[in-house]
Amino acid sequence: MLYMIGVGLSNASDITLKGVEALKSCECIYLESYTSLLQDTKEKLEKLYNKKIILANRNLVEQQAETTILQQAKQKNVAFLVVGDALSATTHIDLLERAKRAGIQTRLIHNASIMTAIASTGLQLYKFGKTTSIPFPQDTYEPETPYKVLGENLSINAHTLFLLDIQPPRFMTVNEAISYLLKLELRNNKKWVTSTTVCVGVARLGSDSQFIKAGKASELMRVDFGKPPHAIIIPSKLHFAEEEFLRQFQ
Amino acid sequence: MLYMIGVGLSNASDITLKGVEALKSCECIYLESYTSLLQDTKEKLEKLYNKKIILANRNLVEQQAETTILQQAKQKNVAFLVVGDALSATTHIDLLERAKRAGIQTRLIHNASIMTAIASTGLQLYKFGKTTSIPFPQDTYEPETPYKVLGENLSINAHTLFLLDIQPPRFMTVNEAISYLLKLELRNNKKWVTSTTVCVGVARLGSDSQFIKAGKASELMRVDFGKPPHAIIIPSKLHFAEEEFLRQFQ
Repeated sequence: MLYMIGVGLSNASDITLKGVEALKSCECIYLESYTSLLQDTKEKLEKLYNKKIILANRNLVEQQAETTILQQAKQKNVAFLVVGDALSATTHIDLLERAKRAGIQTRLIHNASIMTAIASTGLQLYKFGKTTSIPFPQDTYEPETPYKVLGENLSINAHTLFLLDIQPPRFMTVNEAISYLLKLELRNNKKWVTSTTVCVGVARLGSDSQFIKAGKASELMRVDFGKPPHAIIIPSKLHFAEEEFLRQFQ
Repeated sequence: MLYMIGVGLSNASDITLKGVEALKSCECIYLESYTSLLQDTKEKLEKLYNKKIILANRNLVEQQAETTILQQAKQKNVAFLVVGDALSATTHIDLLERAKRAGIQTRLIHNASIMTAIASTGLQLYKFGKTTSIPFPQDTYEPETPYKVLGENLSINAHTLFLLDIQPPRFMTVNEAISYLLKLELRNNKKWVTSTTVCVGVARLGSDSQFIKAGKASELMRVDFGKPPHAIIIPSKLHFAEEEFLRQFQ
């Protein structure tokens, strides 16, 4: 049996009772370490669960799962821990699909995700459009997808959540992300995001040190958001209740 | 102190360790009972938490919070339990805002939401556009918002999640929701949803009895999805990986 267990956003204690119960029966526990990160260390999780945890990088999950995770899950209970909810990223759905194809029983245990925790900003969840990611530019490769998605969302008056690239030990900051978007704006010149556009930067959402700051792009570029993970929201037209709530973060 | 605690999607054991810890210090515990519902009863939660729970309907939260929840939270620790994540609906953000304005300390404890649990269908979360709700028609009042949002999402090639109305003891079914949408289609004739449109119906997502069925609208109208809550997704253009994953639910 393969358990895919969301462990939430921040601390070891963000796991659910159902998740803890499932872990008791598991002989191997993997922690996915390439799409997001917790505030607590692997050691802290190990102590709480009273089990050894193996860190799983992208290569292990995408290239070697057949000879590791899935091989083991044919004979015993294996847990695959995911920061946030269990199927937050395409790579997790892919692992689930491969497990099912290999005839392995699977069980999902859900948990909190940044995709709904952003409601802490006061922005209404049902007004968010597509979510997109901002990658670290590689050499001359600077994907325009985040800019394109922003434009699409604005066209239907929807807010945009940008998740920021994680390539440990590098974690994209709000500052870097805004500067990336402004660069794409300069190239495309559609006025979808300028230095005066109101943005909301968030850091470590769901943790005790959660930090939210709203302001013009040019202002947020100078704010230190501290430790990762960071994310940005570019709101579309704000409802007055949203505007009022956001004011406390200015 | 007011704790707003997500209790997840289905069972008493979907609460997080952090949530359980917070409840220990709370003298009053309210369970929001008008935007969603659990599979487990209030009594089961009471037994697990070893505390009395007060059911809070919309009237209590929106009209009488000042003299109940917020009044108590000025003097002692109060928990407001929300099915799904803590700020899933506008009504919860509004309660948080009123608590802050009254000078009450607040703390959010996040949990799973249907908005990310829908990844169980294999549809990719970053391809979802705006979420919308389908209300029970009242007399001749049949809001067109869900149809309008569907059109907006399709215009940017985004999937649409429809949450279905809950007015205990009435819970909208997938069948009723599809028939509502087809009625709006007939009136507007934009071909956004017809009897041959592929839809995905989900019921009791995150529970052991979770049920997912994909098929043409006309087919899903004849499927019995069982107990509530139900929801529907109308996907936009599918990625081949999404198509393949969906096949198991046909």
